[in-house]
Amino acid sequence: MRIGLDAMGGDKAPEVNVEGAILAVEEYNYTVVLIGNENIIKKELSARQYPKDKIEIVDASQVIGMDEPAALSVRKKRDSSIVIGASMIKEKKIDAFVSAGNTGAVVCAATLSLRLLPGVDRPGIAVIFPTLNKPCMVIDVGANIDPKPLHLLQYGIMGDAYSKHILKKPNPTVGLLNIGEESSKGTDFIREAHIMLNESELNFVGNIEPKEVYRGKADVVVCDGFVGNVFLKVTEGFSEAASLLLKRELKQSSFITKFGAFLTLPAFKKIKKKIDASEYGGAPLMGVDGSVIIAHGSSNAKAIKNAVRAAAESVSQKVNLHVVEELQNF
Amino acid sequence: MRIGLDAMGGDKAPEVNVEGAILAVEEYNYTVVLIGNENIIKKELSARQYPKDKIEIVDASQVIGMDEPAALSVRKKRDSSIVIGASMIKEKKIDAFVSAGNTGAVVCAATLSLRLLPGVDRPGIAVIFPTLNKPCMVIDVGANIDPKPLHLLQYGIMGDAYSKHILKKPNPTVGLLNIGEESSKGTDFIREAHIMLNESELNFVGNIEPKEVYRGKADVVVCDGFVGNVFLKVTEGFSEAASLLLKRELKQSSFITKFGAFLTLPAFKKIKKKIDASEYGGAPLMGVDGSVIIAHGSSNAKAIKNAVRAAAESVSQKVNLHVVEELQNF
Repeated sequence: MRIGLDAMGGDKAPEVNVEGAILAVEEYNYTVVLIGNENIIKKELSARQYPKDKIEIVDASQVIGMDEPAALSVRKKRDSSIVIGASMIKEKKIDAFVSAGNTGAVVCAATLSLRLLPGVDRPGIAVIFPTLNKPCMVIDVGANIDPKPLHLLQYGIMGDAYSKHILKKPNPTVGLLNIGEESSKGTDFIREAHIMLNESELNFVGNIEPKEVYRGKADVVVCDGFVGNVFLKVTEGFSEAASLLLKRELKQSSFITKFGAFLTLPAFKKIKKKIDASEYGGAPLMGVDGSVIIAHGSSNAKAIKNAVRAAAESVSQKVNLHVVEELQNF
Repeated sequence: MRIGLDAMGGDKAPEVNVEGAILAVEEYNYTVVLIGNENIIKKELSARQYPKDKIEIVDASQVIGMDEPAALSVRKKRDSSIVIGASMIKEKKIDAFVSAGNTGAVVCAATLSLRLLPGVDRPGIAVIFPTLNKPCMVIDVGANIDPKPLHLLQYGIMGDAYSKHILKKPNPTVGLLNIGEESSKGTDFIREAHIMLNESELNFVGNIEPKEVYRGKADVVVCDGFVGNVFLKVTEGFSEAASLLLKRELKQSSFITKFGAFLTLPAFKKIKKKIDASEYGGAPLMGVDGSVIIAHGSSNAKAIKNAVRAAAESVSQKVNLHVVEELQNF
């Protein structure tokens, strides 16, 4: 299997991207195609030991920055790593594409190059959250910030297919993110989506409040991309703040408290591993006709490696085939 | 000063409400008027020592449940503690009203009885979040889930007035909650609100991403009530899950790790105090012509006491007068 990897995307590119590619080819039987500035990639590679036959380079002269406007940059930078990566799937030069770069640009380039699966009107980014119970897939977290109720139904169907075939959950429950449990809660948009989900063949469990997501009440939770993105970023922001607050507090603490914190480290490390986003391997861009994984902008090498693995799994498990089948049944 | 307190609202009513009222009158020079089922309140009071001249009871034969539909229950239950509390401000029998009950019903009853301040089109619930820096007021967290851009501007002005006069911040910064920093980000609704805020006289600092809220980048952050409610509840839900996860992990840990956690407790307690919602004293319902404080449904006695204090402060600091003045200047 050949996985394309945007070598230029992410806050710590290209170092962690190249490192993650090497970790992936060392652990799995893939070829990773690094897409980006050839000279820069060669320089990064030359500093490292790696299986030379499992890493290739495709030159891309342009880079789309993390904050550039998505549609405009995709249109203008035809020779950027993101645009080339998306086209290479289309041309069957790679089986899947992974990028930790500008999310909007990846969504836009993938949609333009690959088009959408039959029965899908909008792509959606799916993130798998660790919960107190089983992991929960939240879709969409930012591809489509002003969706129609029908798009949320389609997200439910795609999430259902992914949960069944990749996460191996036999009869996944699907919930609608809302600010109250009762079906009358929320905006007109939410209530309309509730009716559509309720009338579908999905195992719909109704409205899910944010705290129920963390309690693991549903396998799949659908929402509009604006709210989903806020969900994701509040989680990240709060968790960052809480950890900084703890460090700050410990700095001012007595020796005994500091010593206690040192002894407690194993428990914290285990929790960190459980909730660490880098373990989950990036967010699948659902609905495009090809396998695209969006890795977090702050990915480290391990996160990149896991995103490459997730991309390969989505190909080998034929997620899109199952999505199309499910959509046809609805 | 006379503060009305809904004795029947909240998950632990009436116990914690009565207890909170006693804590408040013991610490401050207020009279607290407990509104609710007289027999139940008397029974709760009779089990306790308290300054008899500073607590009164007003009987209310009905209770609006936490999950009842807001508008309907307010219309039907005219003799509920929430409806009576709101009317008593109107009739000047109390100076302010505090409820930990059904939030939607409080918003609805207060708006119907008290009407809105001149220049305000929709009420907004303001919550003060602790951050890594100074506290941040987020408005609206659920009164108005489908607002117009103009309402967000009004929230900005109300938050500005509150920050100046209650939180004593001289030139509060106001931000717009968004999923990216650039002014082009977000839905049409968000972009329109951005233009209005930018053209206003507020100290507008542009779009604020969720993580920047926790970093304390702005004094006031405005958003629609649906997104604001998700913000609030993701924070609560994640924090609940993280703390349960830690407890679960520690249970399975070695004696040494457990001992370490015991030694670290002082640091955790200090952090808990810093971020404890019960310290902040409830959420002011901004925009209605009267002082109404919404306490959290899970309030303990201390949270109720602090909500009573917040209500009294909002009266003595004449928040609404300042809000009206600010609105006139815009």
